[in-house]
Amino acid sequence: MFPVNTWYVAASSDELKDKPLGRTICNQRMAFYRGKDQQVHAVEDFCPHRGAPLSLGFVSDGKLVCGYHGLEMGCDGKTIAMPGQRVKGFPAIGTYAAVERYGFIWVWPGDQDKADPALIPEMEWHDNPEWAYGGGLYHVKADYRLMVDNLMDLTHETYVHATSIGQPEIDETPCRTTVEGDAVVTSRFMSDIPAPPFWKAALRAKGLADDVPVDRWQICRFTPPSHVMIEAGVAHAGHGGYEAPAEHKVYSVVVDFITPETDTSMWYFWGMARKFKPEDATLTDQIREGQGKIFAEDLEMLERQQANLSAHPTRALLKLNIDAGGVQSRRIIDRLVSQEQAASQQQETTA
Amino acid sequence: MFPVNTWYVAASSDELKDKPLGRTICNQRMAFYRGKDQQVHAVEDFCPHRGAPLSLGFVSDGKLVCGYHGLEMGCDGKTIAMPGQRVKGFPAIGTYAAVERYGFIWVWPGDQDKADPALIPEMEWHDNPEWAYGGGLYHVKADYRLMVDNLMDLTHETYVHATSIGQPEIDETPCRTTVEGDAVVTSRFMSDIPAPPFWKAALRAKGLADDVPVDRWQICRFTPPSHVMIEAGVAHAGHGGYEAPAEHKVYSVVVDFITPETDTSMWYFWGMARKFKPEDATLTDQIREGQGKIFAEDLEMLERQQANLSAHPTRALLKLNIDAGGVQSRRIIDRLVSQEQAASQQQETTA
Amino acid sequence: MFPVNTWYVAASSDELKDKPLGRTICNQRMAFYRGKDQQVHAVEDFCPHRGAPLSLGFVSDGKLVCGYHGLEMGCDGKTIAMPGQRVKGFPAIGTYAAVERYGFIWVWPGDQDKADPALIPEMEWHDNPEWAYGGGLYHVKADYRLMVDNLMDLTHETYVHATSIGQPEIDETPCRTTVEGDAVVTSRFMSDIPAPPFWKAALRAKGLADDVPVDRWQICRFTPPSHVMIEAGVAHAGHGGYEAPAEHKVYSVVVDFITPETDTSMWYFWGMARKFKPEDATLTDQIREGQGKIFAEDLEMLERQQANLSAHPTRALLKLNIDAGGVQSRRIIDRLVSQEQAASQQQETTA
Repeated sequence: MFPVNTWYVAASSDELKDKPLGRTICNQRMAFYRGKDQQVHAVEDFCPHRGAPLSLGFVSDGKLVCGYHGLEMGCDGKTIAMPGQRVKGFPAIGTYAAVERYGFIWVWPGDQDKADPALIPEMEWHDNPEWAYGGGLYHVKADYRLMVDNLMDLTHETYVHATSIGQPEIDETPCRTTVEGDAVVTSRFMSDIPAPPFWKAALRAKGLADDVPVDRWQICRFTPPSHVMIEAGVAHAGHGGYEAPAEHKVYSVVVDFITPETDTSMWYFWGMARKFKPEDATLTDQIREGQGKIFAEDLEMLERQQANLSAHPTRALLKLNIDAGGVQSRRIIDRLVSQEQAASQQQETTA
Repeated sequence: MFPVNTWYVAASSDELKDKPLGRTICNQRMAFYRGKDQQVHAVEDFCPHRGAPLSLGFVSDGKLVCGYHGLEMGCDGKTIAMPGQRVKGFPAIGTYAAVERYGFIWVWPGDQDKADPALIPEMEWHDNPEWAYGGGLYHVKADYRLMVDNLMDLTHETYVHATSIGQPEIDETPCRTTVEGDAVVTSRFMSDIPAPPFWKAALRAKGLADDVPVDRWQICRFTPPSHVMIEAGVAHAGHGGYEAPAEHKVYSVVVDFITPETDTSMWYFWGMARKFKPEDATLTDQIREGQGKIFAEDLEMLERQQANLSAHPTRALLKLNIDAGGVQSRRIIDRLVSQEQAASQQQETTA
Repeated sequence: MFPVNTWYVAASSDELKDKPLGRTICNQRMAFYRGKDQQVHAVEDFCPHRGAPLSLGFVSDGKLVCGYHGLEMGCDGKTIAMPGQRVKGFPAIGTYAAVERYGFIWVWPGDQDKADPALIPEMEWHDNPEWAYGGGLYHVKADYRLMVDNLMDLTHETYVHATSIGQPEIDETPCRTTVEGDAVVTSRFMSDIPAPPFWKAALRAKGLADDVPVDRWQICRFTPPSHVMIEAGVAHAGHGGYEAPAEHKVYSVVVDFITPETDTSMWYFWGMARKFKPEDATLTDQIREGQGKIFAEDLEMLERQQANLSAHPTRALLKLNIDAGGVQSRRIIDRLVSQEQAASQQQETTA
């Protein structure tokens, strides 16, 4: 269950080069490609001629060409040409609004007349010399909401990520969840604790002592449809924690774009934007590698959890205080889906 | 959807040696084996004792022996013997008419009393010193009719086989489709064009210049249930094209036997019979290898096309002039299936 | 179809060390672990918090800890603790009686109040200096009853195991099946025959001549739910066969515990207890390796047989005299299942 009148990340910019890219988003198979001036387009991955996947084709002079019989598809879903054929009567295929921003391809799977690029959220860290960004993509065979739950409740770090970012103090420190309109924020502030291995390394990378007590913060922010940004960092204790001056802290934002592929699988775009040593590309690579390993630790858990839930579809789960972030996020998702369904029924009635 | 009162190619002769061979043809699991004097037989791959697959057994003194408990099966589906048992009351299993011809095992999956070996089509090239033949087998997860479409519309060569047999002139030259009884012929004649790489190599192999303009022809002939023979070749331009004397041309027949395994998978026997340098076994191997690579280029396209069609079962496809060969061939298939269904209903009514 | 109010072997003791073990038994996913004093427990593999598999967690101080958010599960299915939570209202999860005996973990998947460890069968060979035991585990994608059939009719050895324990004399010698309460015994005694390779090696291992005629016996004993113990051995001919004094024979028991995983898959625990050279650990390893290879020969046959039966679910199979062991065993299984169903319906009626 997912809203469709919203922007999802479909791919990173790096994934889409000269060749088209086929990908299923929200149960819809799409073909992405770069047209003139590298502009990104998305159409149904279904050639109107004989149903071949357009993503197996190629791009010629800005047009998507079917790799089976050479039909040239326009970004408006209308066939432009086909060798030896008049194409005027060819049925159009569906198109999807697609926008490239922040190094990602964003797509709007629902009503295309509602797609407004202004609704794509702002990302402060993009194209900003104070920040550096690195990230990756995982395909996970689980409902995308299990990943929202995961990221909006970081007590799991103590168990799943015990050797990197987990520490008992996370469990021991209560978190606080608030809802602000369509956003949900779950935050936890830990004081005067040892830094876990990942943050020790970050302190060292910035040239700060890693063997002194720190204050640590985690501020998880969910926004629809399923983006989770986590402000995460540590400061040498006694300098103001989250509010400490830059020279006493390492500060970053964990960036998570979670996109439903099907009802029980997702594309998980993860990354980290950091506000320290942004010019250090080697550090960016090191962090990406480290984060990739850490986030891979969640995958088996989520896929096996999904298998359990699929086998017991009606079994009730608990909603504890630590789950408030996920529970509130799902409530917003549910409301958006209900609104879409109501609007779609009304449309049918008045039509 | 496929007719069953017809001969299909089930295997190449090479595939069936001392051991039985289990294969599903038209949704029926069959065990093929060689009895006395190497004669080929086909029975249900189901031991009447406990349902073990007979194809896991062995052949002893011309009899198929179940590898589980030693039941000896006759080519008439009746149990011959079983250690320590009286077998008179054993239920018979189904048998299939099977004939070895042209280096292939042919099988008749439908009403066995209708199976007439005289209905197996003639193959001029077999056992003929003027011809050489080489080929192979691919298993493809797609409806067999998608391969018929593919072979009856060679404009796809321009796109799928761009580096070997494809060339823009195919696209640019109209084809002509005619129906003669149960046969469909789609032909295309190109004049005064450069030879594509595959045919350049063929010209060289015959000792002909490969850098001069050629006339090229493709005459695709569908006959039921799903055989497609393609006369294909090139002649030095100005010598009469298809009708040119042998010394100015390289002439071959692409041989395609397409056999349904299930509703969405097929056995695809492909090969080439050529009428030049038939004694050159090395050339036969080279052509087989080249053709195998070219025909493998179609497989992903067809399997992904099948996935698209399975996901959108009711979506209409276009029927263009280039599709006429496939469309007409499917019309004949449809008629044969309808006739079989009508005959079978009538039989039930009169019974 | 399987009875559930009975003990099944779920794992060998070796499989369950420090980490929990997740396994499906009779369609139920269970988490096995060792608590205090290494005692074995089994609970549903479903954390009551969010449905994570408990088997992905760890054991701490005798308690099973969920690897996702640290919930501590007790062996009674009640949550003991969870960081920062009151757990009193947490719903309990199911538990399964589990007992470690004879080097195996036994589990009772049905009504837990009926689970009585005294019902676990006696195994004479365990912890007995006169005996040695070695074995292994195979996962087989077939109904567990196909393995019961297999083991209660050893004529298949002639075909499936022709190079090790098979010999024509098995086929030629009639077997005898008797039913004693819930047990079925199928026995075959062969006199004055050559020993097959496996038994030749066993004779040599004991220092006995392997090139003289032997008497050979096979006494297969089925007991519910699906244990098959096979007394198997050979004696130098003329010394009394099965009754021969120990110095003239090699005597062993093939131990088979067959546990349904799902309706069409099983866990097959196989092994051999032998009463000769029990102190020779190298011999134990050699026999385990040899037996493992022999028993692996059955797997493809059973899995392909299952595929055939799944494709033809209503087709009748034969029940010959050689099948009497399997047929009688299935009759007992059927009766036990019927009794359980009747009891469960009565319970519903009176409730």
